Amino acid sequence: MLLRMSTALIRTLREDPADAEVPSHRLLLRAGYIRRAAPGGYTWLPLGKLVLDRVTEIVRAELTAIGDQEVHFPALLPAEPYRTSGRWTEYGDDIFTLADRRGAAHLLATTHEELATLLVKDLCTSYRDLPVTVFQIQTKFRDEARPRAGLLRGREFLMKDAYSYDLDDDGLRVAYGRHREAYQRIFDRLGLDYSVVHAVSGAMGGSASEEFLATTPVGEDTYVGCTECGYAANTEAVTTPVPPAGDPHRHPAAEVHDTPETPTIASLVELANDRRLAGRDDWSAADTLKNIVLTVRRPGAEAAELLVVGLPGDREVDLKRLTAALAPATVDVFDAWDEHPELVRGYLGPQVFDKLGVRYLVDPRVVPGSAWLTGANEPGRHATNVVCGRDFTADGTVEAAEVRAGDRCPGCATGRLTMRRGIEIGHIFQLGRRYTDAFSVDVLGPQGKPVRPTMGCYGIGVSRAVAAIAEQHHDERGLVWPATVAPCDVHLVAAGKGPQLEAALDLGERLAASGLRVLVDDRPGVSAGVKFTDAELIGIPRTVVVGRRLTDGYVELRDRATGERVELSLENLAEQLTGG
Amino acid sequence: MLLRMSTALIRTLREDPADAEVPSHRLLLRAGYIRRAAPGGYTWLPLGKLVLDRVTEIVRAELTAIGDQEVHFPALLPAEPYRTSGRWTEYGDDIFTLADRRGAAHLLATTHEELATLLVKDLCTSYRDLPVTVFQIQTKFRDEARPRAGLLRGREFLMKDAYSYDLDDDGLRVAYGRHREAYQRIFDRLGLDYSVVHAVSGAMGGSASEEFLATTPVGEDTYVGCTECGYAANTEAVTTPVPPAGDPHRHPAAEVHDTPETPTIASLVELANDRRLAGRDDWSAADTLKNIVLTVRRPGAEAAELLVVGLPGDREVDLKRLTAALAPATVDVFDAWDEHPELVRGYLGPQVFDKLGVRYLVDPRVVPGSAWLTGANEPGRHATNVVCGRDFTADGTVEAAEVRAGDRCPGCATGRLTMRRGIEIGHIFQLGRRYTDAFSVDVLGPQGKPVRPTMGCYGIGVSRAVAAIAEQHHDERGLVWPATVAPCDVHLVAAGKGPQLEAALDLGERLAASGLRVLVDDRPGVSAGVKFTDAELIGIPRTVVVGRRLTDGYVELRDRATGERVELSLENLAEQLTGG
Repeated sequence: MLLRMSTALIRTLREDPADAEVPSHRLLLRAGYIRRAAPGGYTWLPLGKLVLDRVTEIVRAELTAIGDQEVHFPALLPAEPYRTSGRWTEYGDDIFTLADRRGAAHLLATTHEELATLLVKDLCTSYRDLPVTVFQIQTKFRDEARPRAGLLRGREFLMKDAYSYDLDDDGLRVAYGRHREAYQRIFDRLGLDYSVVHAVSGAMGGSASEEFLATTPVGEDTYVGCTECGYAANTEAVTTPVPPAGDPHRHPAAEVHDTPETPTIASLVELANDRRLAGRDDWSAADTLKNIVLTVRRPGAEAAELLVVGLPGDREVDLKRLTAALAPATVDVFDAWDEHPELVRGYLGPQVFDKLGVRYLVDPRVVPGSAWLTGANEPGRHATNVVCGRDFTADGTVEAAEVRAGDRCPGCATGRLTMRRGIEIGHIFQLGRRYTDAFSVDVLGPQGKPVRPTMGCYGIGVSRAVAAIAEQHHDERGLVWPATVAPCDVHLVAAGKGPQLEAALDLGERLAASGLRVLVDDRPGVSAGVKFTDAELIGIPRTVVVGRRLTDGYVELRDRATGERVELSLENLAEQLTGG
Repeated sequence: MLLRMSTALIRTLREDPADAEVPSHRLLLRAGYIRRAAPGGYTWLPLGKLVLDRVTEIVRAELTAIGDQEVHFPALLPAEPYRTSGRWTEYGDDIFTLADRRGAAHLLATTHEELATLLVKDLCTSYRDLPVTVFQIQTKFRDEARPRAGLLRGREFLMKDAYSYDLDDDGLRVAYGRHREAYQRIFDRLGLDYSVVHAVSGAMGGSASEEFLATTPVGEDTYVGCTECGYAANTEAVTTPVPPAGDPHRHPAAEVHDTPETPTIASLVELANDRRLAGRDDWSAADTLKNIVLTVRRPGAEAAELLVVGLPGDREVDLKRLTAALAPATVDVFDAWDEHPELVRGYLGPQVFDKLGVRYLVDPRVVPGSAWLTGANEPGRHATNVVCGRDFTADGTVEAAEVRAGDRCPGCATGRLTMRRGIEIGHIFQLGRRYTDAFSVDVLGPQGKPVRPTMGCYGIGVSRAVAAIAEQHHDERGLVWPATVAPCDVHLVAAGKGPQLEAALDLGERLAASGLRVLVDDRPGVSAGVKFTDAELIGIPRTVVVGRRLTDGYVELRDRATGERVELSLENLAEQLTGG
């Protein structure tokens, strides 16, 4: 392949575009890979299309290699199957819906769990037909409230979505593991630095789920990683290491103290130390048990019910974590104190919840045998040595407390958590039977009885991966593509007119004939300096400069990533470039 | 590539699907290439996706070879540019429109003249930047009133659309010609039998246009072809050969006759022969001049105006042809006889139109010097020897008469036209400046003055081409793919269990390793007979049967198209298959 800059639709910009905030967006625009064409919609210019195609081919090859079968579903679909699955309403404003000329409701499908499941129902009748995995690489549409950051969050994007069907949970785990490994191979080949992050399944339903996040400070997704081991998780999915339980009866009896005007943890701790409550002057917020009242509504329930969450006083409730933990129920803050005089605001303690019939969930740190400074359920009074398993019990534990940098890692127990940011480039789910149940999919099992298949789904943001690569592979002068996805292998610069230009074109043709993808800068009237600047902006891994040493039979090879320059003989240049 | 039928999502159907009327639809469903998923929407199964990809690659390669540059525009677009071009309203119900979450009007674009033109406006500033042609291969959506015939007329389909920009008309003609030739190479490589058919540009505007129609009796498009030369045209685009003009004064004077109760041509001709009008008894309908009153409304005009069309009485008016000839004006039948007493219904003659101020257009056969039997503008009376250029003149000619099989070919003047049917697989247009005018696109010309580029556009129905190939390449037993687009090169059938099955799998791997695309039928418990039937239905060009002669080191090679069978030695099978 030989692209000539004199004719190719490549236009570089000297200035940063005004509305481009993140490096990938800025550089993909400036180097002529994409152009904005609509809100959240980009035109892929020739260079960008080449990169997109190379990324697509890597994704396709690795999925085909694990036996996934490529299909292509319609993108425009009647509402009906999405009504059956419940996603028609779950999606809300996030999808584009439309009516056809007869008024029938349709959607632009973002993922195709429904269609894949109906296809399996249609084509698979026996256990012999499973396992099976289908995938497609398709343009998707999503009605983003705030499209931003170029390709990172658009309304139209290219995605790979795959769906696996297995007879049982063991099979699903195998399929899930196979995709997890294929994803690692894909993202490795794409040159991406990424974390595999424990996630909660959220609206997709299902049991296990991990996200692949490309590490970058501009990522929209926050997650935590361990300083010591490979553990990584969304904050929603972080589990708190549980301290050892103790004997509830080793503590002195609970004691109630007058603690006037201590509605906050800080004021309570100060007073406790001032007055040496229970003989101590080393009270900290972590010794207190804070009780937060919330309301929870289960799906389909008429009324919301009260829930109290107890957690160490040095932690705030993270509503996203709590919501994820209680899904599909929804959580709201409580403010009806007037209607609940039995709840003593600011001085709540867990000693009474059982008696009051209020549901009480605690942070995993609140283990049996742990003793707390907490409310005495009387205004202006707190109690010390309130012991879990002796003075109160909880209805269970819940991951509701905020996760903080420095927290102990739940993966290795020695490392500490750090906060990181990333771009979601892949997501894999063990979905289970939500969709096979919704569409009553059964195959004949090996024992002659019907078996309901279990499902996994696996997505990759293909166009987003292009932006993620650009985020991770650039410097102050421009893009620095990994060789696996670069639009071309070699950028030939004719540094001079006349013989250099002719030699560059001739060389370009020879290199292209030997199988290399070549971009040759043959623009007339453009200085060598501008050509070098553009070459660095465009970011093809190797630049070959056809310059003044041409007469001696030499060209210069520049490595975009390292900046290294070497002279090479024209003689066997193709061999050297394809071999190296 | 090695596909195994034991695991691949290939399901053949014994029976014809109830709703599939045309062979391509029936066979693509039965052989497991596609599956209906929505009204006018199909899922491409693995075999179908392979064929679609091969067709796509041929299209891409031939366009890249002529220097077209691949881009990718968003499919979901704001209404604005389509309002500017006027197509937002022109499209009517044929496109899908929708509102985003903010209520802004959008459409799913079928073609991208607007976006391509805006891109050129954005990227091209000088005459040195032209000519340039961009293309994309994209899923398109169209709100078909009646989706039918499977892939032939769906609501979602794959299309290649290209847009060329040139400085002048000569450049446009060169670009148009280059695409015309590329299209011929593409359709030749796809194994299609097709005609290049003169077309009228219709709603696209522009000056010249040709359609590529794949010849098949199930085609929706009717066109005419010549029995002698290569001429082919849509009926709308057929031009009538003009007979030589004569001397208007060589005819006797016009003479008015009582012709009671002859409101139809047939009754008039019968009476004329009975009464030997003007001394003749060989009157035929072709000697009469029929005058049809219509109303025509020009775009933006408040009122419709009268138009009379004169044509030989043996021809009906073809409203599609007349509409195409008068576009963008619209044509309606006239029925307000009461309001126009000056028009004598059934006895209209052209002698008075000039005086009445009524616009009069005639068929091209109505040349100066031709004499006609026509109405005398009095009830019950006709006139003979009414001569064009003496007794009446017309305001021009118009192609309004029906085209009939047997008409003389306008291309070679010796051949005769025959009626044919085809599937539109490609369409090329010389668009001109409609869009560059709409978006005020100018580039700096070589003389320093702004030049407005002129545009061509070129479409190929990629998914429809798959169906067209299936229409032309099948027999009563199934599909018969051309080697260039077949999903696989070789279909290996293990005719027997045990050693044959093992040998087939082993052979499959060896053939795949040598670069062949291989489908191996390794289904357990399926008889050789069923495997052969399925192989014929699926239609891969060559079947290799691993059967009882395996022990002697031989397999059988069957040619799907010819039915020919030869024995081949296992020794160098790969070489023989890749070589042949």
